[in-house]
Amino acid sequence: MRNGLIGIGVVGYGYWGPNLVRNFGAVEGAQVIAICDMDATKLALGKRRHPDVLVTNEFQDLLKDKRIDAIAIATPVHTHFELALATVKAGKHIFVEKPLARTSEQVRRLIEEAERRKLILMVDHTFLYTPAVQKIRDLIVGGTLGDVYYYNGIRASLGLFQSDVSVIWDLAVHDISIIQHILPEKPVAVSATGANHVAGTPDNMAHIALFFQSSCIAHISVNWLSPVKVRQTLIGGSRKMIVYDDMEATEKIKVYDRGITVTSSAESAHQLRIGYRAGDMWAPHLPAKEALQTEAEHFVECLHSGASPMSDGVSGLQVVEILEAASRSITAQGNPVRLSHKLRAVS
Amino acid sequence: MRNGLIGIGVVGYGYWGPNLVRNFGAVEGAQVIAICDMDATKLALGKRRHPDVLVTNEFQDLLKDKRIDAIAIATPVHTHFELALATVKAGKHIFVEKPLARTSEQVRRLIEEAERRKLILMVDHTFLYTPAVQKIRDLIVGGTLGDVYYYNGIRASLGLFQSDVSVIWDLAVHDISIIQHILPEKPVAVSATGANHVAGTPDNMAHIALFFQSSCIAHISVNWLSPVKVRQTLIGGSRKMIVYDDMEATEKIKVYDRGITVTSSAESAHQLRIGYRAGDMWAPHLPAKEALQTEAEHFVECLHSGASPMSDGVSGLQVVEILEAASRSITAQGNPVRLSHKLRAVS
Amino acid sequence: MRNGLIGIGVVGYGYWGPNLVRNFGAVEGAQVIAICDMDATKLALGKRRHPDVLVTNEFQDLLKDKRIDAIAIATPVHTHFELALATVKAGKHIFVEKPLARTSEQVRRLIEEAERRKLILMVDHTFLYTPAVQKIRDLIVGGTLGDVYYYNGIRASLGLFQSDVSVIWDLAVHDISIIQHILPEKPVAVSATGANHVAGTPDNMAHIALFFQSSCIAHISVNWLSPVKVRQTLIGGSRKMIVYDDMEATEKIKVYDRGITVTSSAESAHQLRIGYRAGDMWAPHLPAKEALQTEAEHFVECLHSGASPMSDGVSGLQVVEILEAASRSITAQGNPVRLSHKLRAVS
Amino acid sequence: MRNGLIGIGVVGYGYWGPNLVRNFGAVEGAQVIAICDMDATKLALGKRRHPDVLVTNEFQDLLKDKRIDAIAIATPVHTHFELALATVKAGKHIFVEKPLARTSEQVRRLIEEAERRKLILMVDHTFLYTPAVQKIRDLIVGGTLGDVYYYNGIRASLGLFQSDVSVIWDLAVHDISIIQHILPEKPVAVSATGANHVAGTPDNMAHIALFFQSSCIAHISVNWLSPVKVRQTLIGGSRKMIVYDDMEATEKIKVYDRGITVTSSAESAHQLRIGYRAGDMWAPHLPAKEALQTEAEHFVECLHSGASPMSDGVSGLQVVEILEAASRSITAQGNPVRLSHKLRAVS
Repeated sequence: MRNGLIGIGVVGYGYWGPNLVRNFGAVEGAQVIAICDMDATKLALGKRRHPDVLVTNEFQDLLKDKRIDAIAIATPVHTHFELALATVKAGKHIFVEKPLARTSEQVRRLIEEAERRKLILMVDHTFLYTPAVQKIRDLIVGGTLGDVYYYNGIRASLGLFQSDVSVIWDLAVHDISIIQHILPEKPVAVSATGANHVAGTPDNMAHIALFFQSSCIAHISVNWLSPVKVRQTLIGGSRKMIVYDDMEATEKIKVYDRGITVTSSAESAHQLRIGYRAGDMWAPHLPAKEALQTEAEHFVECLHSGASPMSDGVSGLQVVEILEAASRSITAQGNPVRLSHKLRAVS
Repeated sequence: MRNGLIGIGVVGYGYWGPNLVRNFGAVEGAQVIAICDMDATKLALGKRRHPDVLVTNEFQDLLKDKRIDAIAIATPVHTHFELALATVKAGKHIFVEKPLARTSEQVRRLIEEAERRKLILMVDHTFLYTPAVQKIRDLIVGGTLGDVYYYNGIRASLGLFQSDVSVIWDLAVHDISIIQHILPEKPVAVSATGANHVAGTPDNMAHIALFFQSSCIAHISVNWLSPVKVRQTLIGGSRKMIVYDDMEATEKIKVYDRGITVTSSAESAHQLRIGYRAGDMWAPHLPAKEALQTEAEHFVECLHSGASPMSDGVSGLQVVEILEAASRSITAQGNPVRLSHKLRAVS
Repeated sequence: MRNGLIGIGVVGYGYWGPNLVRNFGAVEGAQVIAICDMDATKLALGKRRHPDVLVTNEFQDLLKDKRIDAIAIATPVHTHFELALATVKAGKHIFVEKPLARTSEQVRRLIEEAERRKLILMVDHTFLYTPAVQKIRDLIVGGTLGDVYYYNGIRASLGLFQSDVSVIWDLAVHDISIIQHILPEKPVAVSATGANHVAGTPDNMAHIALFFQSSCIAHISVNWLSPVKVRQTLIGGSRKMIVYDDMEATEKIKVYDRGITVTSSAESAHQLRIGYRAGDMWAPHLPAKEALQTEAEHFVECLHSGASPMSDGVSGLQVVEILEAASRSITAQGNPVRLSHKLRAVS
Repeated sequence: MRNGLIGIGVVGYGYWGPNLVRNFGAVEGAQVIAICDMDATKLALGKRRHPDVLVTNEFQDLLKDKRIDAIAIATPVHTHFELALATVKAGKHIFVEKPLARTSEQVRRLIEEAERRKLILMVDHTFLYTPAVQKIRDLIVGGTLGDVYYYNGIRASLGLFQSDVSVIWDLAVHDISIIQHILPEKPVAVSATGANHVAGTPDNMAHIALFFQSSCIAHISVNWLSPVKVRQTLIGGSRKMIVYDDMEATEKIKVYDRGITVTSSAESAHQLRIGYRAGDMWAPHLPAKEALQTEAEHFVECLHSGASPMSDGVSGLQVVEILEAASRSITAQGNPVRLSHKLRAVS
């Protein structure tokens, strides 16, 4: 840290990298020092937008640069582990695009290496930093929803087929990170199905069910081959229910005072009577702040304070473990896979 | 048949029965003779609306009535088999609310009894008679969609909890009947998950994946505990894709010229290049005719001609077999259940 | 009144008449005695649906029928006056489809004739009886909205071109009746423009601005030649704003806590500073009751009690006066027409 | 022009200026040389984003700078004339934010001064360069719509109250520029109404009707005080109708094969029979290119080629003349104002 400024290096200047550069560049107390990419065209674009930032196609340049305190990685998933490990070994903090790595073993290794050196390791689970998800979490934690009955998410679009990971590592990762952030309990098993429609490529659509100890059930549908973009989630609770539509410009969250009431019947204690409640709907105003800005500020604050980030290595690990289990279940056409609790604790 | 008029008796005058009476009453060449229900209030309501129709709480009255050629059953699912069997044994044609019966064994028995007596057995899979589903079928059969990659249906609302069947027998039955009507192949396995949120009641939400010999995959989400009513289906094909939203008043079907194109890369035959196609959208005009009217007319025509209905016993059987398999898979948390082909053929 | 039952005759069994028969038929304490229409096919349809109701093509039959206490008129606008006058002269109460008559002079005559005989005269301004408009009125009267700044209504569809009246007598009549029902002040002037696109027919689209003593302004756009059906109204107040979309199935009214705040600037009392308020949105639950049912019950209650209906002759007169003024303004391409206050009081 | 590069100066770095800098900066063959603003904070922001661009609070610096060939003005409306005139007198081309100036007299003066010096004068009517408006124009010019019956536009939001111009100079200006671009005829008269809800400020809502020689009528509703953002336009033609919703992410234009057919009745040549046509809907795919990018390229091309821009001074003049007439009509509560044809031709 020079002059109190956190120096940042960004690796990967494709789809997401430019957003990282722009947002870290706007954080008070931080400065983007260098951009690294193997593609000369992308580097030229970065230079044109940010004439005072160093651009290079050598990752080593970033590792050696004393001005750089932390490296943000926005490269293809299969490269995360190697780049992140080298970063940590070079004594620099690390911010990694989701998912944190390709396997839970890799993630565990990264966590250990970072902890040993007292370095910050943060995974970019962007949605956790959106005003919408923060409001949903508040509504659940504060008891407004009552017991959570289900989470039903759909994330579909005519998306970029990735060559190294299936659609669940690209899209379901968002919902899984949200679920573990907002729900009070951890899933105990997963059943998933999927399909690919281009022979020789990873699955481009999938459905994942997560089971919990309680009667709560979460379900995620993801699809790279949808004619329309869908980002819709229903969350049902015993007291209130939420429709969260991320495609809405302003009313992303609608809270419904609807549901059922269960009472024992007068005639017989064994018979249940179900009543229906149809009340008002309420859409809380949400601030317009860009999630990635909040997230970049949070990372820089953690570097200053030494606090553990909200989306730290352990939360990244839990997500990857669920993705691994889901991948195994898909191969077995839905056969459920247990999620061992001990697996999700870092020794 | 008296004076060329088909006489109809309707059993069950609760939610759906009034629609049957109204629609059969409007069919040229048919006449509703009697309404049967055990609830005096409902019978009184029927009498008030249809002063010239006989009302009775004795099912036997319908069986004995010579003027009645066919009986339409709109009672709770667990009563279908007994009522339908008695109807057939009384020599009358039969029209049964979906699902046809509680078990595939019961359905097979009904098919046999009806065939032996050359009686028409039709199951009320209403959606098959909607202009929307008929248009979708035409687009698939005519090749407009190309190969069908997937069917993704959501059917959710704050629905009436039923005490004798779970949500899949109430809601997923619609999608399963649509799928088997519009797709060229039959599912070979099913994986399903579900949950109930009121102890002691049947499952109120479920997700069903249907696997096919090809890479096609169908998925159905059903929910009795949704704050909003959703009736949305995406159907992806290699040439076109469909968004079918039954909640839309007029543009229920939108056909998108979107998708991917796969070519071998120039550098290497082993590497695939995926291109994206984003073209126009087209919403075909659909006639406004009520599906149940079309369906009632079809039933009466089949009685006249002796032809087998579009939704005959065999199609009702296939639906029930899938529901049975899905129920078993739900109990096993998604463990896939094979669908034996021979099971679906009636000896 | 025989046996405490109000006997109703309905004239006109075209588009709206069947709804009147059905709804008056369902009112406790009322009974539809006869249907009158000049078209034999429509009478046959009425007979088939209501075998116990008298059908006739002679209006005199209704006037003479002692069992008939009140007549509901659902015929073309240009026939309203003559039929209503004859009804009143026959000593029967009267319920007239909107607009009450073709001219304010006719309406004044009807009011006088009915008053003299102490007969109830009610105009069918259906929207006043909808849960949505009743809720909006409550929100305004109760002060939730603050000062009302504007009412902006759009009512468009591919509508039935009428041959005897322009689109404002068919569609704007709804908005005008709503405006006078919910706003605390009466309009003082009107400016309107319109056009017809089929030579020789009445205007099929129009725009009406209503001015008030305060800075409130109301604007209504009506269109028989729209590709889509639109029923959308914005109502802006100093404290809250309403979006009222009658095409929505459930959330017809949304109340927004949005607006501006005006303060004098610190530097200068002459300079205003405008702040913006973007708060929550709230959609009150509305009961599902059909407006015409509420309205039919209200009419029968008024007959029993002798009370003046909510949509009585005077309110019908005010609406017709505004329609007349708007028609004159349309002819003069928007030239404003004053609304004389004395005109709107019945002597 | 140095080295074949057009040098651009941008005046005003508030809401729109940054978009101009970004888009002109991305045009091949152009370079942003300087940014001018009176606010030091805005200049600092410009410098941070564009370290290699000169920033200054002296407009004279731009006029004197030999590297600057053209100046783009994005300042409050009341300053347009003076800044543009000085620019032209300094021999530089000019690109002016809409509306071109505060009065038609000013616009005429600017046109003359620019013509005399053979300088390009372009007004930033951004919507003319959107794929949506270009497609609509093609559909009209190509005859797909048939005769245009009406244009009905709504442009509403909780907008920034401006202190120097009313809402019509801020929002209706867009629709007026679109109308004159897509319709084959010019309006002959205008009737408008408006209101302000903050004493001492310009009108914050208004409705404008434009009359044409034919039966075509255009209507524009604008509103700075709407709880929701609306950008919706209906365009009715004799053959097809368009719904243009600029808030839609992808399907901004929907073309409906709906309308009426008029035939003489068989019984009488004097009686018209109106039939209704309800056919398919079609949403053409639109390219995603940012309008301002297209527009900036067009300006630079015109500088190179000497061609007159699509949105030249004369088109800017016609828009301002209509705004002036509408303002006068608003003062007279809708009294129509003729649009003199000769006024709209530049001598």
